[in-house]
Amino acid sequence: MKEINNIKVVAFDADDTLWVNETFFREAEAVFANMLTEYASEQETLRILYEVEMSNMELYGYGIKAFMLSLIEAANIISGFRITARQTDEIIQIGKDMLNKPVDLLDGVEPTLQLLHKRVKLIVATKGDLLDQERKLRKSGLLDYFHHIEVMSDKNTASYAALIKHLDIEASELVMVGNSVKSDILPVVELGGWGVHIPFHTTWHHEEVRDPVQSKHIFKIERIDQLIPLLNI
Amino acid sequence: MKEINNIKVVAFDADDTLWVNETFFREAEAVFANMLTEYASEQETLRILYEVEMSNMELYGYGIKAFMLSLIEAANIISGFRITARQTDEIIQIGKDMLNKPVDLLDGVEPTLQLLHKRVKLIVATKGDLLDQERKLRKSGLLDYFHHIEVMSDKNTASYAALIKHLDIEASELVMVGNSVKSDILPVVELGGWGVHIPFHTTWHHEEVRDPVQSKHIFKIERIDQLIPLLNI
Repeated sequence: MKEINNIKVVAFDADDTLWVNETFFREAEAVFANMLTEYASEQETLRILYEVEMSNMELYGYGIKAFMLSLIEAANIISGFRITARQTDEIIQIGKDMLNKPVDLLDGVEPTLQLLHKRVKLIVATKGDLLDQERKLRKSGLLDYFHHIEVMSDKNTASYAALIKHLDIEASELVMVGNSVKSDILPVVELGGWGVHIPFHTTWHHEEVRDPVQSKHIFKIERIDQLIPLLNI
Repeated sequence: MKEINNIKVVAFDADDTLWVNETFFREAEAVFANMLTEYASEQETLRILYEVEMSNMELYGYGIKAFMLSLIEAANIISGFRITARQTDEIIQIGKDMLNKPVDLLDGVEPTLQLLHKRVKLIVATKGDLLDQERKLRKSGLLDYFHHIEVMSDKNTASYAALIKHLDIEASELVMVGNSVKSDILPVVELGGWGVHIPFHTTWHHEEVRDPVQSKHIFKIERIDQLIPLLNI
């Protein structure tokens, strides 16, 4: 059963792997669409918002502040620049509420990390906003289980290659655990590492991958505690 | 003359140490204040903006996206919520222009790094936005001189202590070079490291320190190339 061997580091994605995240974005989008019903349907609002987010991705990157700025820009477009300053203020408040959300750990996270951190080096490898991710990790109470946290501006093969170099290990000695096939699994496996995919019920459109990939280095589990029997540590 | 001995790492602040930064914020503020002249004087606008920035600091942290969100919030307050969607859009554009600015290296930076990187490990230790700082470093052409880049959510003794631990060196083996006494010099020297202060002509109010501090571990120079004769490497 212990199919993953010779491991030195287990890296965990954070959002939607250790704690709930995407759900809060979906909730914020619903409030946002509701604010703009006089101008567009929910579907139309979300379509334009997604376009604005994608057009800003290179400039803003990931995270809640980027999301807030795209919400404001999308509201301008959707309303034909008729949105009021009070409504813009409401949008800012939606984002601030997101930044202040309590951290809601997913099932099995704490006992799994508690067991694993005694046997192997654990790190967090996440994208998004540095300050926001550090704050969530502090709030989560999980900080002591991790050797350190790596906030990456993007998760592609180049950034994982830099991470592996920085960790001073071989790619085959790294397991990446996460909910996004595109960001957490494929680039690591491409480099020769291992990927353990734990789907979250909600996936951002941008993170979706159409064709399932087969590899002896990819495992799919339902809950994080199913990781333990996979690891030969 | 070589007064700094037994050094393993030289860390450089980036904004206003390697390249121009604060100037762009001051320019953006002037455009912003000009947009709001019907509601408040420039002085009043900048006072309220600073208040909004400070009240958002814990939640947003440093960087241009945080600045953009505070500009929008301040415009709402200053205008008594009479600012238009078009004006909000202009504010977003001010921020996007800042993110797209070319990188303007300060005098002496490139030759100094070129000489030093052959003799000692150089890193960048900066706060601000991860993506934005990585982009500026790429644009700067300086990337190859640095072992790696550390983007910190804040620069205080705790974060420098974490950096020193991460570098696996003693505090006394670190020199930090930067324009901010508060962020770059004092916390490092407090830990037992060395600080080389290069004042920039413009300092953000938030970074100002009133009382000059005297220490054998603090050096003040005018230009970055004056760093070379200080280091015994």
